[in-house]
Amino acid sequence: MDQVFSYQHLFSFTQQVFLAMGCSEADAATASKALLAADIRGIDSHGVARLSGYVRLWEAKRINATPNIRIIHETPSTAVVDGDSGLGLVVAPFAMQVAIEKAKAVGSGWVSVQNSNHFGIAGYHAMMALQHDMIGMAMTNASALVAPTFSNERMLGTNPIAVAVPAGNEPPFVADMATTTAANGKLEILQRKNLEAPMGWIQDAEGHSTTDAHALKNKGALLPLGSDKEHGSHKGYALGSVVDIFSAVLSGANYGPWVPPFPAYVPMPQNQPGKGLGHFLGAMRIDAFRKAEEFKKDMDQWIRRFRDAKPIEGYEKVLIPGDPEREFEAIRMKEGIPLLHTVTEDLTEVGRKFNLNL
Amino acid sequence: MDQVFSYQHLFSFTQQVFLAMGCSEADAATASKALLAADIRGIDSHGVARLSGYVRLWEAKRINATPNIRIIHETPSTAVVDGDSGLGLVVAPFAMQVAIEKAKAVGSGWVSVQNSNHFGIAGYHAMMALQHDMIGMAMTNASALVAPTFSNERMLGTNPIAVAVPAGNEPPFVADMATTTAANGKLEILQRKNLEAPMGWIQDAEGHSTTDAHALKNKGALLPLGSDKEHGSHKGYALGSVVDIFSAVLSGANYGPWVPPFPAYVPMPQNQPGKGLGHFLGAMRIDAFRKAEEFKKDMDQWIRRFRDAKPIEGYEKVLIPGDPEREFEAIRMKEGIPLLHTVTEDLTEVGRKFNLNL
Repeated sequence: MDQVFSYQHLFSFTQQVFLAMGCSEADAATASKALLAADIRGIDSHGVARLSGYVRLWEAKRINATPNIRIIHETPSTAVVDGDSGLGLVVAPFAMQVAIEKAKAVGSGWVSVQNSNHFGIAGYHAMMALQHDMIGMAMTNASALVAPTFSNERMLGTNPIAVAVPAGNEPPFVADMATTTAANGKLEILQRKNLEAPMGWIQDAEGHSTTDAHALKNKGALLPLGSDKEHGSHKGYALGSVVDIFSAVLSGANYGPWVPPFPAYVPMPQNQPGKGLGHFLGAMRIDAFRKAEEFKKDMDQWIRRFRDAKPIEGYEKVLIPGDPEREFEAIRMKEGIPLLHTVTEDLTEVGRKFNLNL
Repeated sequence: MDQVFSYQHLFSFTQQVFLAMGCSEADAATASKALLAADIRGIDSHGVARLSGYVRLWEAKRINATPNIRIIHETPSTAVVDGDSGLGLVVAPFAMQVAIEKAKAVGSGWVSVQNSNHFGIAGYHAMMALQHDMIGMAMTNASALVAPTFSNERMLGTNPIAVAVPAGNEPPFVADMATTTAANGKLEILQRKNLEAPMGWIQDAEGHSTTDAHALKNKGALLPLGSDKEHGSHKGYALGSVVDIFSAVLSGANYGPWVPPFPAYVPMPQNQPGKGLGHFLGAMRIDAFRKAEEFKKDMDQWIRRFRDAKPIEGYEKVLIPGDPEREFEAIRMKEGIPLLHTVTEDLTEVGRKFNLNL
């Protein structure tokens, strides 16, 4: 049975762990908020289930708990941030804040980040812009699990793109998506339950499409959004590549197959061309284009019109990007966050390292 | 049999047609270059095959041959351009030039466009940035042909995204993709040949996936990249939505089902919330992030590493976005552009209107 924890309980535990790693009070709070944003929004694969992974990276000295995060190059609307091997959960909010300040000053801000680590869910960082009446964008590269069209080699991470757009009376539009057909987290659920994956999610060691959910661990690969050439996998491959280039080639981080792996036990790729992994954050002030009130009125109409689209028989309604996560958030803030037994055990073990009780 | 024309011949004919419509010398040249960029790059659906469509929109007074294209709002890094109902083929290059100038001044430039018309291929406009050592981006919305996930109503256009990234010794990275599983042009080819479409490209009048290529004309719809929910169609839907919002809600153009249709005989949607259709253009100066030479060296390495990825047995090699179009361009600049008999007839008919010989 899943055990259920309140948001506040998990937040406080996570914060204690980051403090025990040596993070400052402010960084521990920032990182916990970013990490828990995944659990609260129903993206279980990217939340506290990964806390032990971050701890192991810190133990392997690949995460610096007291980084000197700084701007190393900038213009009025752009910057490159060096994350100093800090938690991506801290580095990305820093970089997003830089983007927001630049957008305040000159209309938009675009920040590419080098020397960082995994940053949790992209949507959290993009959503930081909303309270400023700005559109927010966030991308990150990640270690290679995805085979480009025609490739029998993993070359890209699941490289997500998030875009958050404020509305007026309606909730914001929040798209947050891996550039693969299916997120790795969904595959992990099937592996755990020994179920087959739908055709088009993964390829096997020979590069053939397969329903074997375990193929990814046996020299297989995730497939780009589109699944195969006939269904546009070259587009998913191109999108993942754009994320990789904006996040890493633009910042001087590692790209393609050279991105550092998340599991601390996996050896680092040889001959890395850059530093750490990379992110790309952006903010555009709405009233740098038109009056924010007019925009929001149109955005409300956009959202309502799409919600009112005639559904296919058998389906209740057409959703707006962000709806499923908002539903999770409403339920979990009230009823708590259910954790798999294995995750609870894992967190208990993490707590033991630092003399903390879950 | 296809008839083959030289690039120069078709360029000169197209230019004469735009001049006969009343365009200035400069605009006629700009529009012809943008339109022909499709034919030369092998995207036959978006090139001279559409010239008669532009002429009919002009005849219907929906295209203004002598527009007063102007910036109606701006900040150092952003602008909104009013296209004054001009040819998108002229309005988009104007807006992209604004983005480029802003990027020169403050690192990046982002321009949302209202009151425009179809702009040809997105890739052409994005590629304008390359010669300035900038990354270029271009998007446009278009009349609704695409059904969001669970929707039995067409709500979005094929809303393409293009991203062009300069390299050093290697050719540039140029992604140019409709946010649907298949571009409408590919479907038109199947319709013409009475062939079946692959499952996952379109849905029929009831919203069920179908292989009937004619279903689109019988109240069906194109499907977003991903084809169905299980394969990520909600991601293609989200991407198409972002294009719609950036192009039209941000500029004050028409969005969603209100975008003006390309065929002049199709009535305009009722209660339109904005003006014309919308585009979104962006430029980022490479050296606003890091030294252009360093970036290009890394971009060369990125491209070579991906090209060298181990191909799946039976496939020759892994391609870089832009490779297929470059191959077309090399061949067609030398051997000419083959046009279908129906297109040649259509162009001859257009010529007759203006006393021009194809």
